[in-house]
Amino acid sequence: MVQFQLLSLRAAPKLLVLFFFFILVNFHIAEAGVRHYKWEVKYEYKSPDCYKKLVITINGKSPGPTIQAQEGDTVIVEVNNNLLTENLAIHWHGIRQIGTPWFDGTEGVTQCPILPGDTFVYQFVVDRPGTYLYHAHYGMQREAGLYGMIRVAPNDPEPFSYDFDRSIILNDWYHSSAFEQAALLSSIPFQWVGEPQSLLIHGKGKFECSLSPSSAAGVCDKNNPECSPFVQTVVSGKTYRIRVASLTALSALSFEIEGHNMTVVEADGHYVEPFVVKNLYIYSGETYSVLVKTNQDPSRNYWITSNVVGRNRTAPPGIPPGLAIFNYYPNHPKRQPPTSPPTPPAWDNKDSRLAQSLAIKAHQNYTVKPPTTSDRVIVMLNTQNTIDGFRHWSVNNVSFSLPHTPYLVALKENITGVFNQTPPPDGYDFNNYDISSVANNSNATSSNGIYRLQFNITVDVILQNANTMSKNTSETHPWHLHGHDFWVLGYGNGKFDVNNHPKNYNLVNPIMKNTVPMHPFGWTALRFRSDNPGVWAFHCHIESHFYMGMGVVFEEGIDRVGKLPSSIMGCGKTKGLLRHN
Amino acid sequence: MVQFQLLSLRAAPKLLVLFFFFILVNFHIAEAGVRHYKWEVKYEYKSPDCYKKLVITINGKSPGPTIQAQEGDTVIVEVNNNLLTENLAIHWHGIRQIGTPWFDGTEGVTQCPILPGDTFVYQFVVDRPGTYLYHAHYGMQREAGLYGMIRVAPNDPEPFSYDFDRSIILNDWYHSSAFEQAALLSSIPFQWVGEPQSLLIHGKGKFECSLSPSSAAGVCDKNNPECSPFVQTVVSGKTYRIRVASLTALSALSFEIEGHNMTVVEADGHYVEPFVVKNLYIYSGETYSVLVKTNQDPSRNYWITSNVVGRNRTAPPGIPPGLAIFNYYPNHPKRQPPTSPPTPPAWDNKDSRLAQSLAIKAHQNYTVKPPTTSDRVIVMLNTQNTIDGFRHWSVNNVSFSLPHTPYLVALKENITGVFNQTPPPDGYDFNNYDISSVANNSNATSSNGIYRLQFNITVDVILQNANTMSKNTSETHPWHLHGHDFWVLGYGNGKFDVNNHPKNYNLVNPIMKNTVPMHPFGWTALRFRSDNPGVWAFHCHIESHFYMGMGVVFEEGIDRVGKLPSSIMGCGKTKGLLRHN
Repeated sequence: MVQFQLLSLRAAPKLLVLFFFFILVNFHIAEAGVRHYKWEVKYEYKSPDCYKKLVITINGKSPGPTIQAQEGDTVIVEVNNNLLTENLAIHWHGIRQIGTPWFDGTEGVTQCPILPGDTFVYQFVVDRPGTYLYHAHYGMQREAGLYGMIRVAPNDPEPFSYDFDRSIILNDWYHSSAFEQAALLSSIPFQWVGEPQSLLIHGKGKFECSLSPSSAAGVCDKNNPECSPFVQTVVSGKTYRIRVASLTALSALSFEIEGHNMTVVEADGHYVEPFVVKNLYIYSGETYSVLVKTNQDPSRNYWITSNVVGRNRTAPPGIPPGLAIFNYYPNHPKRQPPTSPPTPPAWDNKDSRLAQSLAIKAHQNYTVKPPTTSDRVIVMLNTQNTIDGFRHWSVNNVSFSLPHTPYLVALKENITGVFNQTPPPDGYDFNNYDISSVANNSNATSSNGIYRLQFNITVDVILQNANTMSKNTSETHPWHLHGHDFWVLGYGNGKFDVNNHPKNYNLVNPIMKNTVPMHPFGWTALRFRSDNPGVWAFHCHIESHFYMGMGVVFEEGIDRVGKLPSSIMGCGKTKGLLRHN
Repeated sequence: MVQFQLLSLRAAPKLLVLFFFFILVNFHIAEAGVRHYKWEVKYEYKSPDCYKKLVITINGKSPGPTIQAQEGDTVIVEVNNNLLTENLAIHWHGIRQIGTPWFDGTEGVTQCPILPGDTFVYQFVVDRPGTYLYHAHYGMQREAGLYGMIRVAPNDPEPFSYDFDRSIILNDWYHSSAFEQAALLSSIPFQWVGEPQSLLIHGKGKFECSLSPSSAAGVCDKNNPECSPFVQTVVSGKTYRIRVASLTALSALSFEIEGHNMTVVEADGHYVEPFVVKNLYIYSGETYSVLVKTNQDPSRNYWITSNVVGRNRTAPPGIPPGLAIFNYYPNHPKRQPPTSPPTPPAWDNKDSRLAQSLAIKAHQNYTVKPPTTSDRVIVMLNTQNTIDGFRHWSVNNVSFSLPHTPYLVALKENITGVFNQTPPPDGYDFNNYDISSVANNSNATSSNGIYRLQFNITVDVILQNANTMSKNTSETHPWHLHGHDFWVLGYGNGKFDVNNHPKNYNLVNPIMKNTVPMHPFGWTALRFRSDNPGVWAFHCHIESHFYMGMGVVFEEGIDRVGKLPSSIMGCGKTKGLLRHN
């Protein structure tokens, strides 16, 4: 403004316009701010569960820093890859990336990986309030420790009130490296990575060091302060909003705060018609907010627990619970609760899990009505298969493989020869396939073909579970959709009946989510609008399952995608694209 | 030729020229052939010393396939990077890359790394006969198992004869991963990676499984056929040429074939005036050919051994010898020799090692005379330093760091801001620096500055050893020069005297090599011609030492370098270079 007064009057009209423009811009920035982060990513030795191993850290931490923003803010994250020989990509889980599909952070789908030494700048708008996540989306790097939370505060009042806002990220934890797990999964014969060694609550767990004695001398130290339990300190007589998120590599979890009920009020950024639970089932990629009243005896502490469900946590060597402390001030935060940790639900009580899935409805005042009909229905049969001797997961007998040129660039820039032009099928042999028999369908193939969706239509996806390659076994799979929220229209047991089950869809108050479980031997029905120009992954959020091919990719409105930033290019055929000589 | 007859006569003169051209070209190709290799690089579980760990393999093998070529051949290697998230670069050790400096395979110096999914084509001429190597030259990937041998057969008769030609690559072996070692080395306080767990002879060693009992159940298996000892079967009464090479991460070795003398005839591709040894000292990056007469009692087998020298192999837990079997046919190849493995030289007998270094002279009929004077002398003081709390190795108090944009591309394409334009010093404070005191020079810096050499001059390099940061300690360092062979003019104990020691240089029959040891508390003097346009690394071949900054880079004749292939670009500032929009 000082400069303005110094300028000649002749320039005034133009400058006046500029002046108001600047005011508007500044006002806009003041309202919708910019959150700028600088992250250095590298390997460090950490002992999150007392067992020392290499962990990928952000600014020295795993989980990484929480991104705190206001609805409408622009988040800028400068990621410096300081890994020695390894590339990187970071996905902003639950952020729809409207207008910025190139910053979804999915290697092979929306970008080339970030090379060692490079700094990549992610920039996107967090357009909705709620609880979201970020994590590596390249190879199996997520389980190496690169993950964290995004909290977006609302501009408008919320349909519930609380005194304090707290966060807890749940995880499971392996002592083997992502490299080692990938090598096992790609072995002939197939070698399963097994169950995790421990469960982490907000980055802290407790591995029983005596289970790996001699060689672990100096490697496992139960007194390492890095694995002292996570403590959530509370004061009595208040209401706490606790944002609970899971980024497990494998495990479905049951989360509980001993002696305290939890009222579920938010799921994946959407307000939930409140319901009360003793334990919260949570699947990898999901986030919830629960309200907890600190209305119990304040003279003691209580257990916070996570337990594996859906897989046999009791089979030797067993998966011990994740344990943290719900600390009533002024009790000492390390004071052990006088009771034993609460008994978790039976691992195989799938009815209880299905019931909780069904209980999650949109809040009555915040319901976004789904379209009543769909334009396209894709039924996705989930099976295990053997292809060329390798074990895979498949959708309609097609096991997904990532190309090394990102789809988004290939499609937008018309680069040919990048991926198979034959899309995967929209269904399977409904009439003849027996979902309760061991999968012996031998005609499965591996492909990087994708679903191309007409822009702005309504798409239904039915996730159909089935028996794996082991007798009487069907697993729980949390499916996550990039770039969208979907309506959860229904869940059911057994085989989905395309003629009858849609009649029972919840079209009244379905919750919108970005991640949803498909229960054992069951089905889950979703609906979304193909209204976000870009290329979007939809996949099982279990790290090893996506690695084994359990995913698909949707393209929609590629012609409406803006000019791609060159920062996402440089690999595969996009290396040649940049070369105009 | 059939086609030629079908053509009209009017075209004949031109075609006649073409005809002879084709004949010449074909003749040339017939004489200098093309050796075409396709390599798939990936991680696999292997048990080279009975302990199962992830190994980087080429076509399923570590060591990788031997490249066998004829002098003058063009070698083409298509490298497909099938690592999941990790890049790659392969150096052709000892190949001078005349005219192809961009295919030297040194990440950060001559090329960008090869991304996962990419296929990179190396193409170069093997212009001299002899024994060479290849190995990863990125991060610390070499010690993950990516290495092998290049054998180039001569067009002319050699100054020795033999009945059979055999190869043995020596290595040391760690059970921790390259990632883990790098993280240790970059810790504050510094954590040394320690001594190797075993020594490998041609990819096979024997770790004593009982040393890591419980957790190693299923991990260490002494009966795994992958770690059955390497067997060199021979027939009695013959002369064997054995090419012995070392690619250890750390260890200097003494190599011996029990009861058999060895006549050294080749070193790093140059014929040696033959001399006889009982044990061959060999440093990482060196190759030798020795002649062995099978003139011992043929009714039994003999030990082939490698032992660590220069470092205390007896300190607990100790480094057991590498053991293989020299199998006189028709004895069973697995039959143990009836004797104990021969006693190796004392690990600290440095006089014996210096004596052998001095014994290596050029063969009298194959001596390439060095220039009698030099145009530039660079004295390189090798010290340990602490910089910002991190432990480094330095040359003249400058610890080398690699840029993420290759020097070759930056210099040739005039990309600025890639590296520090201040070169490292040509010397140190000769008069005042005490090489036998603990290095406490606190003014060391880290830099990616390089030496820029006038083209086609004679350069002397004096490698000056000194005390480390531990009392009374000076280590052995094998220095390797890319793009050149150098004359080894002399070795000495103590501090190099620039006024007097050059008077004793061997200018009569110095051996030419590409790798040479610098002995503890001693110096080594080299001379080379800066006649190979390109950018060339010169560094300690110990994997962890180069990682810690023990290296320099020379540029010479950059203006004479031909058009760079775009395949070497795409990282750092060369990503922008390719973008012409």
